[in-house]
Amino acid sequence: MLSEFDLIKQYFVRGARAGAPRATLGIGDDCALLTPSPGMQMAISSDMLVEGRHFFAGADACMLGHKSLAVNLSDLAAMGAKPIAFTLALALPAADRDWLAGFSRGLFDLADQFDCELIGGDTTRGPLTICITIFGELAPGQALRRDRALAGDDVWISGTLGDARLALACLQGELVFHRATLEQAAPRMHMPAPRVALGRALACGGLAHAALDISDGLAGDLGHILAASNVGATLDADALPAGPALASQSRSLRRQFSAAGGDDYELCFTAAPRHRAAIVEAAAGCATLVTRVGVIEQAPGLRFVDADGRPLALSAAGFDHFASA
Amino acid sequence: MLSEFDLIKQYFVRGARAGAPRATLGIGDDCALLTPSPGMQMAISSDMLVEGRHFFAGADACMLGHKSLAVNLSDLAAMGAKPIAFTLALALPAADRDWLAGFSRGLFDLADQFDCELIGGDTTRGPLTICITIFGELAPGQALRRDRALAGDDVWISGTLGDARLALACLQGELVFHRATLEQAAPRMHMPAPRVALGRALACGGLAHAALDISDGLAGDLGHILAASNVGATLDADALPAGPALASQSRSLRRQFSAAGGDDYELCFTAAPRHRAAIVEAAAGCATLVTRVGVIEQAPGLRFVDADGRPLALSAAGFDHFASA
Repeated sequence: MLSEFDLIKQYFVRGARAGAPRATLGIGDDCALLTPSPGMQMAISSDMLVEGRHFFAGADACMLGHKSLAVNLSDLAAMGAKPIAFTLALALPAADRDWLAGFSRGLFDLADQFDCELIGGDTTRGPLTICITIFGELAPGQALRRDRALAGDDVWISGTLGDARLALACLQGELVFHRATLEQAAPRMHMPAPRVALGRALACGGLAHAALDISDGLAGDLGHILAASNVGATLDADALPAGPALASQSRSLRRQFSAAGGDDYELCFTAAPRHRAAIVEAAAGCATLVTRVGVIEQAPGLRFVDADGRPLALSAAGFDHFASA
Repeated sequence: MLSEFDLIKQYFVRGARAGAPRATLGIGDDCALLTPSPGMQMAISSDMLVEGRHFFAGADACMLGHKSLAVNLSDLAAMGAKPIAFTLALALPAADRDWLAGFSRGLFDLADQFDCELIGGDTTRGPLTICITIFGELAPGQALRRDRALAGDDVWISGTLGDARLALACLQGELVFHRATLEQAAPRMHMPAPRVALGRALACGGLAHAALDISDGLAGDLGHILAASNVGATLDADALPAGPALASQSRSLRRQFSAAGGDDYELCFTAAPRHRAAIVEAAAGCATLVTRVGVIEQAPGLRFVDADGRPLALSAAGFDHFASA
């Protein structure tokens, strides 16, 4: 029988890391100790993933380890913060060695990619639930907030949208696709790539006014920027960058899943038109596609138009954990 | 129907607080922003509470709000850190207004007592699970760690032990007590008082070598100090300060529940004998009882003796979430 302490020791306490240790004191005491870099602010985010809600029962443990950390890294990316460390609280139905080995491999592979150190947490028995709190740092005044969009700003999207939603529709039997389509789309749902480098480049270069990461669908999430900034926006539904699997589907499905999909973990940001060239260059430096999809306006509300500028009626509802009871 | 955003806004976003805001940017963006005090270290701890594991189904929401934060404040107390802020991730089976009102009241009453600000988090639907990550600060070198106990140190306990365990035994039908005994013991289980002031006084005064908070039973938890510090200890089982309800029970039950209870959230710390008077004075300044219960020794292992110094065989097993499948 694997005890709580053996479990932590075997799967979550690591030997020498490639990078220098970030924590002054890591796993094993009542608290971890972090020494912040002088003059830097700390960005902090917490996400909880629940089996049957955020992932299917029986989901691959390695991909789940990746995704649990990726959604938190995506929040740091959306602020423009540099990842430093994270805590992991884990409720497990049982101490299953195969599951723990897979989960910790997926988690640490991604953590190492961003030099982000596990510094503490909690393990307990319970319905499978993963709660990560992540810490990043950034210089004062650099944070990409939601409340700084200005009328006249361009609206930009990183990467592509909708393939995670397509995979979900397929796995839930909501729509039927070719097997190859699912195989193309599924990694976007299971293994999102947080846009940390792009977020850092936008923040450090002072290139963006407002930003967030798209987790509940573009329309709903952009709505948070519009509300916080007291502005509106018009987006070109046909300019939204559909993922490779979604791109081969009908126009109506492309529009719907790009505009109100979910689980995209791309950045949506607004920026002054004079920064267009610098943004394209910064994104190229991160090997990340960026697409201009619309404009911020004084008039409140979110409007969609087609490629010819004609108004479209698209549902702007984001995903709400308490609305779909 | 209460949406996720309305839920957060109504129950967890607050107006003006008594103290100055701790967060540079609080609830509502991708991350919260904290500006650390210059030169200070950050102490970070995360605890997850699961219904049916850490609390009974149907537990009073207000007491649960208190306890969820109290166990985290207790971790800061055990490091000697000053509470600053916390995040809350909450999985709820439903958005129940009465539950939310009670939970947030219990949570914020305690948060205000320690001037500790809720700066962000997550809410989702799922089996009732509460994960709080807490942030404190302290000067470099002041932290009360587990690995600094020295042979010759006194072992001290704050407050009293065992009443929470007594209440649990009663509520589980493991033992039968008078109703008055349960009424006396139950608050210790439901509303623990984190020893933040005492932890601060010990850390700031340089009075203790090692410390932790007792959550899984004294014997098991002290074992972590002994292992980390590579020392042993002998404790006087009859010197352990039993709680008022436990004090009226048999000697064998007093010994058992004081030594290996659980949910005590008292501090266990080790200190040089020359600091005895200063420790008693510091504790009096915090209106907190402290009791000397034993001594740290070179010989590894934890030994119990009775008031006459005769060896006792007491189970030293702490609570393990994965041992009792």
